[in-house]
Amino acid sequence: MDNILRINMSAKGGPEITIKPADTYAGLGGRAMTSTVIADEVPATCHPLSEDNKLVIAPGMLSGSPAAMSGRISVGCKSPLTGGIKEANSGGQPSQVLARLGYAAIVLEGKPADDSLYKIFINKDGVKISVDNSLRMLGNYDLIDKMKAEYGDNIACISIGPAGEMKMAAASIAFTDMELRPTRHAGRGGVGAVMGSKGVKVIVLDDTGMSMRQPQNPEKFKAANKVFVEGLRKHPVTGQGLPAYGTNILTNVLNEAGGYPTMNFRYGQFAGAAKISGETQAALENSRGGEGAATHGCHRGCVIRCSGTFYDKNGRFLTKQPEYETVWAHGGNCGIDDLDAIAQMDRMDDDFGLDTIEMGATIAVAMEGGIARFGDAAAAISLLQEVGKGTYLGRILGNGAGVTGKVFGVERVPVVKNQSMPAYDPRAVQGIGVTYATTPMGADHTAGYAVTANVLGVGGNVNALKPEGQVELSRNLQIATAAIDASGMCLFVAFAILDQPDTFQALVDIIGAFTGQETTADDIIALGKSILTRERDFNARAGFSSKDDRLPDYFKKEVLTPHQVTFGVSDNELDQVFNW
Amino acid sequence: MDNILRINMSAKGGPEITIKPADTYAGLGGRAMTSTVIADEVPATCHPLSEDNKLVIAPGMLSGSPAAMSGRISVGCKSPLTGGIKEANSGGQPSQVLARLGYAAIVLEGKPADDSLYKIFINKDGVKISVDNSLRMLGNYDLIDKMKAEYGDNIACISIGPAGEMKMAAASIAFTDMELRPTRHAGRGGVGAVMGSKGVKVIVLDDTGMSMRQPQNPEKFKAANKVFVEGLRKHPVTGQGLPAYGTNILTNVLNEAGGYPTMNFRYGQFAGAAKISGETQAALENSRGGEGAATHGCHRGCVIRCSGTFYDKNGRFLTKQPEYETVWAHGGNCGIDDLDAIAQMDRMDDDFGLDTIEMGATIAVAMEGGIARFGDAAAAISLLQEVGKGTYLGRILGNGAGVTGKVFGVERVPVVKNQSMPAYDPRAVQGIGVTYATTPMGADHTAGYAVTANVLGVGGNVNALKPEGQVELSRNLQIATAAIDASGMCLFVAFAILDQPDTFQALVDIIGAFTGQETTADDIIALGKSILTRERDFNARAGFSSKDDRLPDYFKKEVLTPHQVTFGVSDNELDQVFNW
Repeated sequence: MDNILRINMSAKGGPEITIKPADTYAGLGGRAMTSTVIADEVPATCHPLSEDNKLVIAPGMLSGSPAAMSGRISVGCKSPLTGGIKEANSGGQPSQVLARLGYAAIVLEGKPADDSLYKIFINKDGVKISVDNSLRMLGNYDLIDKMKAEYGDNIACISIGPAGEMKMAAASIAFTDMELRPTRHAGRGGVGAVMGSKGVKVIVLDDTGMSMRQPQNPEKFKAANKVFVEGLRKHPVTGQGLPAYGTNILTNVLNEAGGYPTMNFRYGQFAGAAKISGETQAALENSRGGEGAATHGCHRGCVIRCSGTFYDKNGRFLTKQPEYETVWAHGGNCGIDDLDAIAQMDRMDDDFGLDTIEMGATIAVAMEGGIARFGDAAAAISLLQEVGKGTYLGRILGNGAGVTGKVFGVERVPVVKNQSMPAYDPRAVQGIGVTYATTPMGADHTAGYAVTANVLGVGGNVNALKPEGQVELSRNLQIATAAIDASGMCLFVAFAILDQPDTFQALVDIIGAFTGQETTADDIIALGKSILTRERDFNARAGFSSKDDRLPDYFKKEVLTPHQVTFGVSDNELDQVFNW
Repeated sequence: MDNILRINMSAKGGPEITIKPADTYAGLGGRAMTSTVIADEVPATCHPLSEDNKLVIAPGMLSGSPAAMSGRISVGCKSPLTGGIKEANSGGQPSQVLARLGYAAIVLEGKPADDSLYKIFINKDGVKISVDNSLRMLGNYDLIDKMKAEYGDNIACISIGPAGEMKMAAASIAFTDMELRPTRHAGRGGVGAVMGSKGVKVIVLDDTGMSMRQPQNPEKFKAANKVFVEGLRKHPVTGQGLPAYGTNILTNVLNEAGGYPTMNFRYGQFAGAAKISGETQAALENSRGGEGAATHGCHRGCVIRCSGTFYDKNGRFLTKQPEYETVWAHGGNCGIDDLDAIAQMDRMDDDFGLDTIEMGATIAVAMEGGIARFGDAAAAISLLQEVGKGTYLGRILGNGAGVTGKVFGVERVPVVKNQSMPAYDPRAVQGIGVTYATTPMGADHTAGYAVTANVLGVGGNVNALKPEGQVELSRNLQIATAAIDASGMCLFVAFAILDQPDTFQALVDIIGAFTGQETTADDIIALGKSILTRERDFNARAGFSSKDDRLPDYFKKEVLTPHQVTFGVSDNELDQVFNW
């Protein structure tokens, strides 16, 4: 992982490939890499779809090594959705494969002069880029089938669907999973539109002949990894809850806590929650059977295995087990309580290359605007079809909740920095509200998952309904998360490291043993802070101010049932999040 | 003009009317009134379509008096287009009539609980507001016919068309002219959407039984007014050019100067300019004949009479003489050189209640996005029809160039603060570029019309192609304009007062004689500064920073023909505009 691959799509005579040592970026991984390259090289005021923007794809610092859980990959750019810096993060196989191929990052630069569509093939022998207009407007599933036919089964793919080609601000980038299906996505912020603007449809990776990255201190690494894995296995969330029920175990939890955003954040509880809960979903998946039904991993080296496989009524593969946020977005947030319909929309999002959270939030805003009725699953599916087809209505929806709210004159649009809020109402989970408001990413639960101490009793307890303590909670989580996103570790390791000091120390030791450098907890914190500082600096240069670190006004005025609560963290407090 | 009429549309049991003395707002008119009320009373972070926003309609300080040219009216709110403070300004009859009825402002507050549509009738006996759902989705022309049938001919109307009801960000508010036609518009910034969000379709004014507002010092007033009118008559622009050819005299001038934005600001000259110039237009209008053909005023008391009347090929009234910016927006900016097609679009905009500048700029962006071909007049007309119908495509376009660019993934979108640039390319007319960038209104030529010294040789000469001197030019014009917009004077008086010290002094004297207070030129400048300061303070509270006082990046990179020039005023210089 010593090299950076750059492809200049603007070059005269066609794309120009440069492979050079990482140099000043050496040692950076994941979000540390993407945010540093974007902050250093992209003019903050450029148009996100212009030749001045760059798309950076970077495996985590530990990716491609024997470290458990290290298969996350980061995608960075100036976001077409938020107008600020973006890191979107995905599981799947490509992180491990790209790291083993020796690349610390792929950087797509410039913009082709015509509208040719390119594919990129990377293996041990180097990098090839070629025009392939036969791929135009293919869904991710058909695209991957085509790549398999062309390059065989020992590949991993990074690709966009029609949404990315149409440069929609809700377009994702798909990463194939262990079964070579495009089910894992860098979903948020429209990173797929930036890949589309670069004219790149797919990056095919084949690490045949390459080997695993080896730690500098193998003994210490092996020992630390063992403690780390044990820690994950013994924690109730990562050892039991997530494997058995997946992330969707949260539906009942959030609904009981009164923080389950229902029908476009109108209510805090959903009458149909039990019908779409993780427990119901796991039972359904198990009853339908099939390989990897209710417990499955998204990449090799995963020991939590929070995922699963969703087969349809006839036992045919439909999609991976939809995540909690997806089930919420296409489910409760639209008043829909039909798991099969939700799974179908999950499949459509993956195929079109769309962020499930943004799409569910957008359809709910469209429903509030009178385009369809809340609870009408068939209507929601047909709205999503419009997006895939790129009809005028589809173009509106595919550009997210903010644009949809503007087009239909809807006032209640739950976005921060124009990115839709995920599956936790910030009035009833005020810590996550602080994260939504202040993270440089726009509303994002993964940027500082305060649901831990607010609702799950992980890493302490902070009353979810009151403003006290939320700023400190979110601050610490945002710092830790930025570091984890740099490491390549799955964020779910946080449950165990927050509660178990030994597991946290084991992670620190894994990093130290891998790099061969003395590493302490303070170093991890310093890394997290440096990433956030860089991101906020980019956003400031792009025109963001403290006024952008706010929830929409109505969350401070409109009372949420059942707790009769509004968002209570003051503007002054929000402005303290990054005063460390 | 001692009272402020407030109507609270949120009140339980229906709208609540309050008429009270202007109190702390006494003496303010036009933009001084609207911007002060908005800055003082509207929470800067509120949603523009929420109950917290207010719509303020205020006649100028001199409106309703015998002062020549004093018929301008200001509309203020937080703009749904820019997200900042907005003053949009119109000619027509209502300013004089409302002032004579004794109102310094109408303030629409709150928001009705249901979607009933209201009409408001104001005469000497008071104010009536009633539900009239029969008006729903009427075009402004049919609406005014209905009002005439109901209230007789001695009325003046303030209304919205379907675009305002649909809360489109390009929706205007129409003001009837001397012929009781809805041809004058507070066009910019989506003020019509705010009126629509308040549920008010039309305000009908009847000043029967009321008399002209009288100056405190009638002798001094009369003398000053005489000098003022003479000054306007002897200046070549206001005395000859504008009456003979209307504002569209500028087509040839800007085209020759290489600053005529052609095909979405791609070129600085248009091959078809001669076919749509003011000279051609005046000849066409004269050849078709009819009342008020090539020279006509928009309100009583106008001595410039820059307008005219456009009859179609069969001699039937089609629309008022389209303004230069309209002819440009629907003409050269879309590559269209057909005056009849342009006039038809002008009529459609007036009828649907749309800003002609925003719509022309938006259609050009849609053309750049591949939705229609540049130069295709029939396609442009049909796009505009979509807007009136409120189809999905129409909803996109009706929300302006910014949203349209996002939806169709277009990079070259000529907006500042999300408002479309008007008919002067900022690369070839750099002073107007400074105004576009820095005015609190979003790109707006009327906020500081540097075309004067840049191109017309009025008020001095500043080389249009170079950055030197542009900041000072724009600053002085922005200050003067804010004061003129408060006075109720038509901005076209500026040509004469910039060149003729006597005419400027006469205007100062008119104001002093009217109010009975000692007034100097310094007072006028202080008034202008205070308005701008208030507006910028609101925008800062709404989240605007210096980064919003910028042109899109591509104006600094993309060279404009024929002068091979880019926008050269630096960011540092732009930040000096309000350092007075």
